[in-house]
Parts: sequence; structure tokens; C-alpha cells
Amino acid sequence: MPPSHETSIGIALDEVDTPALVLDLDALERNLQRMADAVKGSGVRLRPHAKSHKCAEIARAQIAAGAVGVCCQKVSEAEALVAGGVADVLVTNEIVGKQKLARLARLVRQAKVGVLADDAGNVADLDAAARAEGVRIEVLVEIDVGAHRCGIEPGEPALALARRIAASRNLRFAGLHAYHGSAQHVRAPAQRRAAIAAAAEKATLTKTLIERAGIACETVTGAGTGTFMLESASRVYNEIQPGSYVFMDADYNRNVWEEGWPRFEQSLFVLATVMSAPAPDRAVLDAGLKASSVDSGLPQVHERPGVEYAKASDEHGVLKISAGTMAPTLGEKLLLVPGHCDPTVNLYNWFVCVRKRKVEALWPVTARGAVW
Amino acid sequence: MPPSHETSIGIALDEVDTPALVLDLDALERNLQRMADAVKGSGVRLRPHAKSHKCAEIARAQIAAGAVGVCCQKVSEAEALVAGGVADVLVTNEIVGKQKLARLARLVRQAKVGVLADDAGNVADLDAAARAEGVRIEVLVEIDVGAHRCGIEPGEPALALARRIAASRNLRFAGLHAYHGSAQHVRAPAQRRAAIAAAAEKATLTKTLIERAGIACETVTGAGTGTFMLESASRVYNEIQPGSYVFMDADYNRNVWEEGWPRFEQSLFVLATVMSAPAPDRAVLDAGLKASSVDSGLPQVHERPGVEYAKASDEHGVLKISAGTMAPTLGEKLLLVPGHCDPTVNLYNWFVCVRKRKVEALWPVTARGAVW
Repeated sequence: MPPSHETSIGIALDEVDTPALVLDLDALERNLQRMADAVKGSGVRLRPHAKSHKCAEIARAQIAAGAVGVCCQKVSEAEALVAGGVADVLVTNEIVGKQKLARLARLVRQAKVGVLADDAGNVADLDAAARAEGVRIEVLVEIDVGAHRCGIEPGEPALALARRIAASRNLRFAGLHAYHGSAQHVRAPAQRRAAIAAAAEKATLTKTLIERAGIACETVTGAGTGTFMLESASRVYNEIQPGSYVFMDADYNRNVWEEGWPRFEQSLFVLATVMSAPAPDRAVLDAGLKASSVDSGLPQVHERPGVEYAKASDEHGVLKISAGTMAPTLGEKLLLVPGHCDPTVNLYNWFVCVRKRKVEALWPVTARGAVW
Repeated sequence: MPPSHETSIGIALDEVDTPALVLDLDALERNLQRMADAVKGSGVRLRPHAKSHKCAEIARAQIAAGAVGVCCQKVSEAEALVAGGVADVLVTNEIVGKQKLARLARLVRQAKVGVLADDAGNVADLDAAARAEGVRIEVLVEIDVGAHRCGIEPGEPALALARRIAASRNLRFAGLHAYHGSAQHVRAPAQRRAAIAAAAEKATLTKTLIERAGIACETVTGAGTGTFMLESASRVYNEIQPGSYVFMDADYNRNVWEEGWPRFEQSLFVLATVMSAPAPDRAVLDAGLKASSVDSGLPQVHERPGVEYAKASDEHGVLKISAGTMAPTLGEKLLLVPGHCDPTVNLYNWFVCVRKRKVEALWPVTARGAVW
């Protein structure tokens, strides 16, 4: 694919060809600092989730700002990040299948790599893959703390699995993964608090059981951008995994944030061009479903009140223009706030990094499309 | 990004690492033949839309099966297809912005390339770009026939624009683009008929006006997989642009098809692995929002009654398993029918082409991510 942005460094944002994935470096750096400040003194380790950015440059910036390493979701993402210079990656997912297990074990030779398990058969497969490669893999037990996705039941079932990992010659039991995904996007603070209180209770109960059985439970990890202040204060989680805070998106911006919590700002945008302006109340952008993910709602037009992104098709975004609003003109470039940052980033090969509306750098989306 | 499927040729489908974009070649070839049969004798030219597949291999197969060329939506797609050996491409879109116009004009040196316009200022820019490159660009006027996206009003406004194109030294007026996008997904045959009858009326009126003004109106093009039989029979359209028929998807499969119309079959799938089976009524696939587009509904599990893809997150698909159904087991691989084929294909770098459940070829998604 032709590298559209090859010659972009130094040019003004308005000159960048569209659609483009734009990253405001000042906002990104402030978000990194805000997270570092929020974690400082809490006794909790920061391990940001790299599934949001899939970018080795950003992972290294997070580590430089105090993170112990990063998380990712897929072996292929971990491979790309390790190749990009990240030395400590936790794959916060179950890894199933011969090819992936062999690749995971191979990666352990190059970096500190952990993984989750929620099934005894899978633990046996992990152990066999590690033995075949002559390595020892760190495994955390994923418990279901309310999201009802992956994860074994907290309490006795989790203890039984922890025992099995601890007894496996080529595995090391490293702790519990207790992530409540759906709680991140609950709008009201009181309900988010209740969800995380329940999750923390399940994590505490399970950790206590495991420790009473004489097995060390080093790490309890979880949390996202919507709730990490709660896990940090829980006294049971000692590692947190927020991802979206570096970028933010329209969906997270709909959350109501508590007093005293850090406020992250929008740093990620899609730059789009008005390619048709056929009626006073309508204009069409060159950015549709293939330029901005719509699973969590449509993108929003940045700082253009009265101009609404009303409909997305494959390569078009239809704007509705309120009466009395100055309509965008043909050729004008607008910034969009993506509905959901993670799958939007995955559509692009490059971040066009800008500072004060000038292109400063191009960062590859190192693990773009690395879904296996 | 590591080429996950590098060593896949010759292996069984069940051995392919997941998620993978799978193309059933027998079904694809039958779909190509059915379309060729449907068009034969109608006097209508077939110019399939390549935005669905973004793949030079498939474009060449369509041309071998009788298509006059292909359509695409973006200059970058056209570049990729021309580089892949396609000699005739219509960009069914307005192209706005200096860089894109220069690239479009450059491409005209290498292949037959057409484009749309719906604005007089844009026509002047197209003419200037063509003059700078020393080429002549074919331009069709896009008229709004009911989809209310891009397109100038039919009738007099379209005539005025056609005159302007015809009077531009480096442009050639080539006809009308009269595509009714939203009609494609109208479920009921009668309503689809009504929408296309109205579109054909607007196209006829405009074509007549233009011809009475002494300007030849060579081509009237439009239609998609949902309606092409209607445009073919309309006596005004002489070119049709169906795209999804090669693959089909869950959304198109919800349309009710008329008697006597060709039936296209599902050839495109996402292969996914059960990576967690934590409860009798629930299993989790390794294919979520980054593996299958959800803008037109969730993917469907292929030939597994009682197993429903109920929820997608970034990298997970949660399956709901009805009581009394044999639950998918950990490690089992399932085929998914994507909700919407076009944005799903755009997530992948490769088609894993299978015949009788054995991998026969790997075809690159030539224009993956070519959105500008």
C-alpha cells in the first residue's frame, strides 16, 4: 500500500491528506503525565493496555513515564511490541491453539511475557508448549468478576486452577487477573463504584483462599480507564491496566467522572475532508466505516457546534448542518473524535503526530491487524 | 506485521491460525458465473465494485468472467488495483484536494480511469489537475437519486454541470452516476422496486435533458447487489456496479429476493477459535470488533444452530449457547458470516482461499486500508 504520509513531516495539519489518524502530542504527553501523577504513591504498578494503541513508540513512552511494562491481547501483538523494544508484556487473554502456544513460548526467550488461563486443559497445553521450548511461562488465573466473558469462577474453582499451574513444571503461577470490562463504560460513578467493589471482593476472597493454600499470589491485576482509581484504592489490586487514557474517545467522554479524578483529554482524531456539499443542511466527509469505528457510536465533529456526523457508510460520513450554522465548505478539513479508539486505530498504518497543528512525527501502528 | 498465513498453502482449513479471513473458492466462482449469466443478453455492462474486495486477484477474475473493468471509491484503491494489473477503473466518488487530484491525473497515464463530480468548483480543479499532468480525465456527473449522500440534483443542475465538464479542455463528459445506495438494503422487493423506479425516472429525465442540449451521455451507471436486476431492466442504466455478490454477508442475506433472480451464496467467512468455554451456556471466540465489522449487525455462526454470536468486544466474541445444543469445545474452530463484508475485508491483509476445506491460495487484500 502506498505510504500516503511519507512526505508529511514538517507540514501543517491542514495539508495532511485524508482520512488520517492524527495524534496531538501535547495532549498525549499531558495524559501520560496525569496517569503517572495519579498512580504515584498509590503503591499500585501501572501496566497500560497496548491494545488501544498497538504502537511500540507509545508503549516505550508509557514505560519512560513509569509503567512497568504493557498489556496486550494477542500473541501477534506481543511479538510486534517485543520486536519494537518492549521488554515486559502481559497477554491479558487465554491463548489456545498449537501455533499460538508455540509462538508464545518462543517469545518468552526474548522478553518477560505473561499470559492468562481459565481452563485446566489449556494449562496442560501451556505447560507442554513451554517444555517444548525449554522455557517457563508466567500464568495468571483469570477470574470472572462480573463481565461474564472469559474467566473461571472466583473462589474454589480458581484455587484449583492456581494449584494446577503451581504444580506444572514449566509454568509459574503469577497471580490473578480480575478485569471488569463492562464496568468501564457504565456512565454513573455510583454504579461503577458498586461494580468494582463487587469485583474487588471476589478478587480478595480468591487471593485469600490461594494464599491460605500456601501459594503466593504476587499480582492482582485489572482496571481500565473508566475505573482504575477504584481498583487503585481497593487494597487488593496491585497492578492496573488502563489503555484508552492516552487517547480518549467519544464513548469514554460520555462517562461522568468523579471529583478529584484525573481528567484525560482527547488526543486522537481522524482528519477528514468535505468531499461533497450538495445542500445547505448536508455535507459529506471522506471518512466512513473504514476510517472510524462505529461500534460504540458515531464519531463526533470536533469543535464545530451545529455540525453533526449523522450517518456512516463504507467511505462516506454524512454531516447534518443545523440552520444558522456556518456550513463546512468543499475541501475544508475537519477533525473527528472517534466513537471508540481501539478499533479505529486498528484501521490505520500510521499515526500522524502533530504539535501545535504541525506534523512532528509519523509513528507506525506496529501491531495493526495483529489479531491472532 | 508477521505474515501469519505464510506457510498455510495445502493445509486443512481447521489448521489455519485464527482469526482468518476465509474465502471459499468454489462458492466465489459460482457467484462470478451467476452474475455473468444474469447480465448476459441484457445489453448492460458489468463493472463490479472493488471496494468490497480491494483485491486485484478478484478484480482480474471478474474481468475474466466478462466485466468491462471495476469500480472503486478512493484514488489509493485505484492505484493499488492498477498496480495489480487492472486496466479500467471508475472511481465512483468525488475526489477533492490537491494531492489526490494530482495522483488521479497521474494514474490516467497508466490506465483508463474515470471519476465523478457534483460541484462546479471541483470540475475546475479536476480540469486544472488534468492540464498540469497533460491528460484528459473522464468525468461522470453524480446525481442524487434518493440516497441523499453525494450528488447534484437531477435535471437542470445536472445539465449545467455536464455542460461545464463538456466545455473543459482536459475533461471528457462520460455520463451519469445514479447509484441508490440505501435501496440496496431495503428488505422487501416491492419497496426496492419503487426506489429504483424513482431513481431510473430521475436518470432518464436528466439523460434526456443532456442529450437535447447536444451532449452525448454515453454511460448511465449505478446499482448494487440488492437491486442490479432492476437497473438492468430499466432501459436507462447501461452499466451496473454490484460488489457484495462475490461474497455476500449477514446483512444482504436478510434481503428478500425476487423469483427468478440469481441466488448468490456465502463465500466469505471469518474463521475463529473457541478460546474460553467458562459456562455451559457461554463460550468465547477470539474474533471481536477487530476481526469482523459490526456496523450492520453482529456476525452469525455458520451452520451451528443454537449457537449465537451475542456480543463483540475488541478481541472477543461471546457466544450464547441454547439449552440442549452441543456446546462448542475449547479449541474448536467455527466459521462466522460477517455482518457486513466490505469493512470486514478491510481489517485483513490476506484472503485465505480454500477449496473443499483445504487452503489453495493466499490472496493479498491489495488495497487494505487504502482509504484516502
